[in-house]
Amino acid sequence: VPGPLDVDDLYARVGKALAGFLSAQAPVLDAVGDELGPMMDALSALTSSGKRLRPAFCYWGWRGAGGDESDAIVTAAASLELLQAGAIVHDDVMDNSDTRRGQPAVHRRFMTLHRSAGLRGDPADFGNGAAVLLGDLCLTWADQLLSGSGLSPQALTAARPVFDRMRTELMAGQYLDLLEQARGGGSVSRARRVIRFKSAKYTVEGPLHLGAALAGAGPDLLAAYSAYGLPLGEAFQLRDDVLGVFGDPECTGKPAGDDLREGKRTVLVALATERGTPRQQEALRRHLGDPHLDAAGIIELREVLVETGAVTTVEAMIDDALRRCRDGLLTARVTPRARQVLGELAIAATSRDG
Amino acid sequence: VPGPLDVDDLYARVGKALAGFLSAQAPVLDAVGDELGPMMDALSALTSSGKRLRPAFCYWGWRGAGGDESDAIVTAAASLELLQAGAIVHDDVMDNSDTRRGQPAVHRRFMTLHRSAGLRGDPADFGNGAAVLLGDLCLTWADQLLSGSGLSPQALTAARPVFDRMRTELMAGQYLDLLEQARGGGSVSRARRVIRFKSAKYTVEGPLHLGAALAGAGPDLLAAYSAYGLPLGEAFQLRDDVLGVFGDPECTGKPAGDDLREGKRTVLVALATERGTPRQQEALRRHLGDPHLDAAGIIELREVLVETGAVTTVEAMIDDALRRCRDGLLTARVTPRARQVLGELAIAATSRDG
Repeated sequence: VPGPLDVDDLYARVGKALAGFLSAQAPVLDAVGDELGPMMDALSALTSSGKRLRPAFCYWGWRGAGGDESDAIVTAAASLELLQAGAIVHDDVMDNSDTRRGQPAVHRRFMTLHRSAGLRGDPADFGNGAAVLLGDLCLTWADQLLSGSGLSPQALTAARPVFDRMRTELMAGQYLDLLEQARGGGSVSRARRVIRFKSAKYTVEGPLHLGAALAGAGPDLLAAYSAYGLPLGEAFQLRDDVLGVFGDPECTGKPAGDDLREGKRTVLVALATERGTPRQQEALRRHLGDPHLDAAGIIELREVLVETGAVTTVEAMIDDALRRCRDGLLTARVTPRARQVLGELAIAATSRDG
Repeated sequence: VPGPLDVDDLYARVGKALAGFLSAQAPVLDAVGDELGPMMDALSALTSSGKRLRPAFCYWGWRGAGGDESDAIVTAAASLELLQAGAIVHDDVMDNSDTRRGQPAVHRRFMTLHRSAGLRGDPADFGNGAAVLLGDLCLTWADQLLSGSGLSPQALTAARPVFDRMRTELMAGQYLDLLEQARGGGSVSRARRVIRFKSAKYTVEGPLHLGAALAGAGPDLLAAYSAYGLPLGEAFQLRDDVLGVFGDPECTGKPAGDDLREGKRTVLVALATERGTPRQQEALRRHLGDPHLDAAGIIELREVLVETGAVTTVEAMIDDALRRCRDGLLTARVTPRARQVLGELAIAATSRDG
């Protein structure tokens, strides 16, 4: 069954736009030195997969606003995949994550390169340094791909404030998240605020607004996209949080219980913390963020999340958000086709298993 | 005696443009949360000082190309200071540097915040994570400040490829540098290549070209700026390397021998390594990069750098580069005033003591 990302062959075209851009950049890096090869390889591997959700929202935000189907808008939308690549490369350094999209995280790749080349110093420091630089390159290239997408200067000028705000809120949201981990979590309202900036605005509302602004849309459509996109982004992240604990590693591309081992302070965990008995709270304190958390510990934490009702509440929050999302979509004056695909994207983003 | 940075009150105006931009961004961060305050504080502190060399080259690249004096070009030039802020915040994380511009490095500031707020987890990890995010924000804001400088869309479109290439070469050069440290240095030619991309192109040629492209300059002027800027950038970095070992901490804002403690693989060090006796090479191996390097070790390394003739050779390289820089400037068809200031900037950048 073709999903919403297959409409207009979008998934493949975003991949092609990314691969084409990276090919065009290869000579620039080659001119600096052969040694840059592993940087390009790491980025090609990272961007060859991914859900392409942000480009999809950008593209349909544009189409919904009456923008014509064109390669230029697909290229502009693909820039969000490079922005996301930069964000996750840096995120994996900060979280010290081992894997991403079923492959070693970028800092791990460079740690391995350090070891196999017999280089000096700490392999982890080298890996982290290389990943910081590769993330920086992604952020730069995201910008370059958008500007060079072939859309008109007027369209790009209209969309730039949206793009700038998206990036600023992404980084600010990431900082809130980092701080929340260091605070030890426990607050549902603070965890929801992290979701708002890190996910709802950045993953759904921002891309929709970017597409709409590129197409010259007015404030009414932007407001309708917010009404649809903010609850959808919240639901998307809540689903991600549930999958991070209960998901099948085959589908998520991450080891079982990875979020628990990292100690992510999600809404799910905050709910369990607020509601848990002293014994349950003690289990959360003991196991969350334990890098050596084993299968028994994962099972114990999963039980706490279920028994406190946290999972049920999060599923109810997802349902409620999806209701608001659907209501929001009804207020959007968009083409029937865009309405249909946006409806399907909402389901795809929140009922997925990986 | 007023220096070249005082011409047209440039130093102060760049600072004012930066402060104005940061004030305008404050509400965006405030809307995310009060917790973002320390991010803004760290960035304000970092950008309140600095040599402003890159903005100066950009401004005089523009003026030399016949661009009119305006606040818009000063604002565009100031964007390079935010780009540089992002680069050094990340660089300090990678090098684990304690100080920058006479103040604690950004990751150190957030390490202190972590401790004083009694947060959980490793303070160093928190500091590094916050600094990665603040650097990302700087990279984004550099782009935003340039685009929103008030220069015409045509000027910005003409200059964008220059800005994009500058950023790509900066990050590629930083990776070469990281790799060179891990290789243990020892190659003068490889160390000079790092300088070419990390400094000559990024610090001088790129900013000049950016200003020239914004003013719509043609290939002849760009070539003349390269002939002036590339050797000047090389001389600038060679001077920086000498100051990193022999500089007065009062002037450089860094502790004595900081580059030696970090184990920076500079041209200076590569020359000494290539030429040293076995005893001298052994001293380099033993002391370079030792985080606990003491005053006696610093003195021993300084002696090796002097006795091998490495310092004399580097000073000769600086002189030779400055000759090529002056010859290059003669080929540039620029206004007499721009020629004079560019000549003075070359002296200021290479005969400084900090």
